Amino acid sequence: MLTFVGLGLYDERSITVEGREALARADRAFAEFYTSRLVGTTVADLEAYHGIDIEVRDRAGVEQHPEAILDAAQEEAVVFLTAGDTMISTTHVDLRMRAHDRGIDTRVVHGVTAQSAASGLTGLQNYRFGKAVTLPFPYAHGGDGVPPSVIESIEANRERGLHTLVYLDIKVGDVPGKQSEGDEFMTGDVAAGLLREWEDALGVVVARAGSPDPVVAADRLSALSSEEFGGPLHLLVIPGTLHHLEADALRDLCGAPPDVVEESLA
Amino acid sequence: MLTFVGLGLYDERSITVEGREALARADRAFAEFYTSRLVGTTVADLEAYHGIDIEVRDRAGVEQHPEAILDAAQEEAVVFLTAGDTMISTTHVDLRMRAHDRGIDTRVVHGVTAQSAASGLTGLQNYRFGKAVTLPFPYAHGGDGVPPSVIESIEANRERGLHTLVYLDIKVGDVPGKQSEGDEFMTGDVAAGLLREWEDALGVVVARAGSPDPVVAADRLSALSSEEFGGPLHLLVIPGTLHHLEADALRDLCGAPPDVVEESLA
Repeated sequence: MLTFVGLGLYDERSITVEGREALARADRAFAEFYTSRLVGTTVADLEAYHGIDIEVRDRAGVEQHPEAILDAAQEEAVVFLTAGDTMISTTHVDLRMRAHDRGIDTRVVHGVTAQSAASGLTGLQNYRFGKAVTLPFPYAHGGDGVPPSVIESIEANRERGLHTLVYLDIKVGDVPGKQSEGDEFMTGDVAAGLLREWEDALGVVVARAGSPDPVVAADRLSALSSEEFGGPLHLLVIPGTLHHLEADALRDLCGAPPDVVEESLA
Repeated sequence: MLTFVGLGLYDERSITVEGREALARADRAFAEFYTSRLVGTTVADLEAYHGIDIEVRDRAGVEQHPEAILDAAQEEAVVFLTAGDTMISTTHVDLRMRAHDRGIDTRVVHGVTAQSAASGLTGLQNYRFGKAVTLPFPYAHGGDGVPPSVIESIEANRERGLHTLVYLDIKVGDVPGKQSEGDEFMTGDVAAGLLREWEDALGVVVARAGSPDPVVAADRLSALSSEEFGGPLHLLVIPGTLHHLEADALRDLCGAPPDVVEESLA
């Protein structure tokens, strides 16, 4: 049995009770932290909290050599842990398919996603979001600025009046704690600066969603690009047209200047 | 202090550990179950599990008369519970704004959403979903069939190759247990039948997401419209174009006929 469990957004308490119970029943637990990272905890704290050893696999250890995980799951109750939701990345779907091919039962215990947080913390309505995009570090996509596909997706959403959730690039070592000096997390101010195509447009930075002290700041992208929002993870939302309650929430809860909000009203 | 806590998708164990701890620390807990419903538990079971009385408010008791909640939150630690994520509905954002206006500190403890489940259980990638829609009961929108806005949104997503999550209408009494005879939940087969505009297109029904035994079934909408998927809640996904891994997942994990999947490949 292979149970995929999403750890949620921030620390060891972001998991669901159901996920915690799956871990308590498990014979072995594996994890990967190269697709995302829980910034509010460590592997050691997760192990202590859940009372189980967690075998952290690097990218090759999941994608090229999943046999250790699958062999274990054939014999025992195995949990595979990821930050955020599980199944967010194709690599997890691929692992689930491999288990399925070997006749191993699989189960998915969902986790809280950045999408929930982007909507819940900003007051922007979840059904008014279009396609989400990921903004890569410029060096990572081999060009200057922003990939055309990102521009096109934001533009297509804006044409329909829809909000865009912009995931910000992270480059992390495979094993948390071991290679943390090289970790890079794109911040909201850097992202706002990269999107200079819409510098007068309204943006919302969400920092440390899921933590006890998230920061949510709404302003023109040009203004956000010169602010600081503290430690990772950050998200950026580019609102489309606003309904009145959304406008009120951005102004009263997220500090958006009233004139900027006014311009975005439907 | 007013803490909004999302209960997640199914039963009393769908909440996060953080949400459970917020309830344990709370002096009073309010809840509403008219925007969504946890079908795997009851208010009595939630109360027993969390060791706190839960004061269920009907729509008027939240929207027209929120004073009881706000007065309590001014003096004590109050938790406001909803099914799924919190802040999904405008009514919750409105309550948070009212608290903010009265100088009451608010906090949001996110819950797992149907969006996570729609993506996680089907293998469809979350960043390839466009705008979500809600399919209402025909009698509820005063017309035949499907509202033009729903058709347009699905069509706009399909033109961009994006998947559409279709929330299915629920009509529930304000107080679970009390008025349950009149409760109506649109099922996946009914939804698939309503969308006859795309009867040859691929659809995926997700039933009881977040429960221990979710059912996920992919086929042409015309075929899904004559199947049965058991008890509520159901969701419907209309995939756009498929990447190879998505196609494999729909075929191997969701039972989609190979020829139908083939037609949807990017």
